[in-house]
Amino acid sequence: MNSFIYDIPTKVYFGPNQLGNLGKELAAYGKKVLLCYGGGSIKKSGLYARVAAQVKEAGLELFELSGIDPNPRVTSVRAGADICKREGVDVVLAVGGGSVLDCSKYIAAGACYDGDPWDFSSGAAAPERALPLITVLTLAATGSEMDNGGVITNIETKDKIGRGYPCMQPKVSFLDPTETYSVGRYQTACGCADILSHLLEIYFVPEGGSMYMLDRFMEGMIKTVIKYAPVALEQPDSYEARANLMWTSSWAINGMAGALQNCGWTCHPIEHELSAIYDITHGLGLAILTPRWMKYVLDDTTVGRFREYGVNVFGIDPSLPTMDIARRSIELTEDFLFNKLGLQSTLTEIGIDSRNFDIMAGKSCHGEVLKGYKALTPEDVRKILEMCL
Amino acid sequence: MNSFIYDIPTKVYFGPNQLGNLGKELAAYGKKVLLCYGGGSIKKSGLYARVAAQVKEAGLELFELSGIDPNPRVTSVRAGADICKREGVDVVLAVGGGSVLDCSKYIAAGACYDGDPWDFSSGAAAPERALPLITVLTLAATGSEMDNGGVITNIETKDKIGRGYPCMQPKVSFLDPTETYSVGRYQTACGCADILSHLLEIYFVPEGGSMYMLDRFMEGMIKTVIKYAPVALEQPDSYEARANLMWTSSWAINGMAGALQNCGWTCHPIEHELSAIYDITHGLGLAILTPRWMKYVLDDTTVGRFREYGVNVFGIDPSLPTMDIARRSIELTEDFLFNKLGLQSTLTEIGIDSRNFDIMAGKSCHGEVLKGYKALTPEDVRKILEMCL
Repeated sequence: MNSFIYDIPTKVYFGPNQLGNLGKELAAYGKKVLLCYGGGSIKKSGLYARVAAQVKEAGLELFELSGIDPNPRVTSVRAGADICKREGVDVVLAVGGGSVLDCSKYIAAGACYDGDPWDFSSGAAAPERALPLITVLTLAATGSEMDNGGVITNIETKDKIGRGYPCMQPKVSFLDPTETYSVGRYQTACGCADILSHLLEIYFVPEGGSMYMLDRFMEGMIKTVIKYAPVALEQPDSYEARANLMWTSSWAINGMAGALQNCGWTCHPIEHELSAIYDITHGLGLAILTPRWMKYVLDDTTVGRFREYGVNVFGIDPSLPTMDIARRSIELTEDFLFNKLGLQSTLTEIGIDSRNFDIMAGKSCHGEVLKGYKALTPEDVRKILEMCL
Repeated sequence: MNSFIYDIPTKVYFGPNQLGNLGKELAAYGKKVLLCYGGGSIKKSGLYARVAAQVKEAGLELFELSGIDPNPRVTSVRAGADICKREGVDVVLAVGGGSVLDCSKYIAAGACYDGDPWDFSSGAAAPERALPLITVLTLAATGSEMDNGGVITNIETKDKIGRGYPCMQPKVSFLDPTETYSVGRYQTACGCADILSHLLEIYFVPEGGSMYMLDRFMEGMIKTVIKYAPVALEQPDSYEARANLMWTSSWAINGMAGALQNCGWTCHPIEHELSAIYDITHGLGLAILTPRWMKYVLDDTTVGRFREYGVNVFGIDPSLPTMDIARRSIELTEDFLFNKLGLQSTLTEIGIDSRNFDIMAGKSCHGEVLKGYKALTPEDVRKILEMCL
C-alpha cells in the first residue's frame, strides 16, 4: 500500500441559500475581483445578478471575462491573466461549470507569471503562486471545484493538456444543487459519464494498489451516479438527485479516493486527444471509450478487480464464474451509459472516423506507452479506438 | 436535506517514512515548539527520539509537556498553556493518541487566552484563535487528528466535556499505521469500538436526514472496522488492517460523513458521564452502551434505518421481515463488540453499579432532554444504563 499526502483545503458551502456568504469570502482576499464565466446562461438563470449583488454589497470592484468556451482555450487564459495584471486584481471568481473553473485556475496562476500561461500546460514552467480562486459551480461533472487541476486546449497546436498545481486549488467553492436544475438532459448525461469515468479510472488499479476503506467509498460513489443520474434526467429539479451527483462529482476526483493510486489514467488521456481534434463533449468521449477500454484490458490478471466491481456495484451474484461476472459488469456499464443515460455509443454516430486514430494514439501515449491500469502502446490505443467505431 | 459547510483543511501525511517532513512543517509556523505527550510509550517506541531529531535538525527550540492522561485533565491544559505563554511558544506539537491531541488543542487555544482555559469547556468563553497545532498520531480511535474537537475532564467538578472550535483544527497530521503496531489488544479493541460508535452516532438519523452518497460512505467505513479490527487483534503488525483502521478513524468523525446530520449524539454524552465518574476507557463505555441504546430506540419509526444498516453492512437477507433484520443487526453489533473484539459486555463486569445512574442520566440530558436520534429524557437514559448492568 502506497504512502500519500492528503491535502484538500478547499472550503465548501453546500446547499441552496449559501451565496449570501460569497461577499465576505471574497472580501477576505482583497478588493478587486475578476469574474470569469462562459456564455450567457448565468445571466439567464439570474445567478450573474446574485453574484454581482454580493460583490457590490461587499464594496468590491468587479472586472469581467466572459465567453469562456467548453474545452477552454489558452486564449481565454491569456486574456484573463492580462486583465488581472493590468487592473491589479486580487481574487478570481469563477462562476460556471468545469471549463470555466479550469480556465480560471490558469488565469489565477497566469496573473502571477511574466511568461505565457501556456507554459503551465506545455510543462515549460510550473506556477509557484496564483491569485486566490473562489468558485460558484453550475454543473456536476469535472470536480474542478475541489481539486487543483485543469485542462486547457490550444487550438493552434491541437493540444489539450490537463495538469494540476497546488497553488491553483480553490480557496472556497459554492455548491448549490439547485443551480444545476436548468442543466439540460444531454449535458447532465455527459456530466454523469465524466464523474463515472473519474471513479473508474481510479477504481481500476493493480492488485494491492488500493485500500479496502477507499474501495468501498468509490463503489458507493459509483452506485450514487448509477442511481441518481437517471433520476436527474427524468426529474431535473430533484434536489436529492442533483445534490448526490454534485457532491459525488467533487469527491470522485479531489484526491481522497485515489490517494493510493499507483498507476496513471487511461480513458482521459485518450479522450483529450479525441476532443482536441473534434471538440466533442468530454463526457461523451469518455462514455464511448470506457466500456471498450474495459473489454480490452479484461484478462486473467485483471478479472479479479472486475469481479469486485460487478459484485459490489451491480450486485451480481458472486457465485457465478469470475469471468462471467466481469463481462456482465462491463455490459451493465454499457447499459448505463448508452441506455440509461441515452448517450451515443459509437464514434461513427458522432461523425468521427479512423483517419486521425494514429495521431491520437501516438499523442495519448506520448509516443511510447500509456501507463494506465494496463500499460498500452499506441497500437493498443488504436485498437480501442477501432472498437469505438 | 440540510445545507452544510465543509471545512477540513488539515493536511495529512499518511504512511511510514513520512516523519522526515515534520521539521519543515513545524518550521513553517515558527521557532519554538511545545511537544506534548502522555506516558513514556513514545520514548519506548523510539518515536520521541525521531520527533526530537526532526525538531533539532530544523533548528527549532523544544519545550515539553509530558504526562497527559487518558481522559485528559484541565490541569494539563493549564500547565501547557502556561508554558506557551511563559516561553513564547510558536507551535504546539502533539505526539500520541486522542487524549494527547485533545489536550493539545486546548493548550494551543489556552496559550492565546488570558483566562482559565476551562472556560472553553464550560462554555464561559469561546477561543477566537489558537497557536498552530501539528499532530503525530499513535492510536486509531478518536479522530482528533482531523477535527477541531476535544474532550477535557475536570476531576474537581467531575465534568467531562467535549467541544470543538475551528481555530483548534490541526494544521498538519502525521498518520503512520506502523506506529500503532505496538498498541495492545485491549486498547486496539477500545479504539475500534470508539470508531464504530462515531459512525453509528452519525449513521442513525431520522428519515431524510442523510444523503445516499454519504450513507454508502459510512457503511463502507463501518464494514472496514468490522473487517479489520479482528485482524489487528490477531496480527498487530498487519499494515493493511492498521492503515484501514487509522484512515477510517479520521474520516468517521472529521465532519465529512456527518455533514448533514440533523440531530445530536447519544452514546457519547452518556459515556462521558460514565467515565467522568469512573475514569473507564472511553471506547469500552461506548461498547457497553451502544447495543443497549440501539435496542431502546428501535421501534416502528426507526426500524427502516436499522434495516438499511443490517442489509448494507452485515449483508442480512433483505427479504426477511423488517423488524427481524433490525433485531439481527443489533445482535451482530453485539457479537462484534463483545465476541470479536472481546470487550466486557456489562457495567457490572467492570465494577459499576446503579448508584450514580440518576446523576449521570440527569447530566447527560443537561437536566432536560438528550436530543439524539430519538430524544431521551433522564428516565430513558436511566433505563438504558440499567440495560447495561
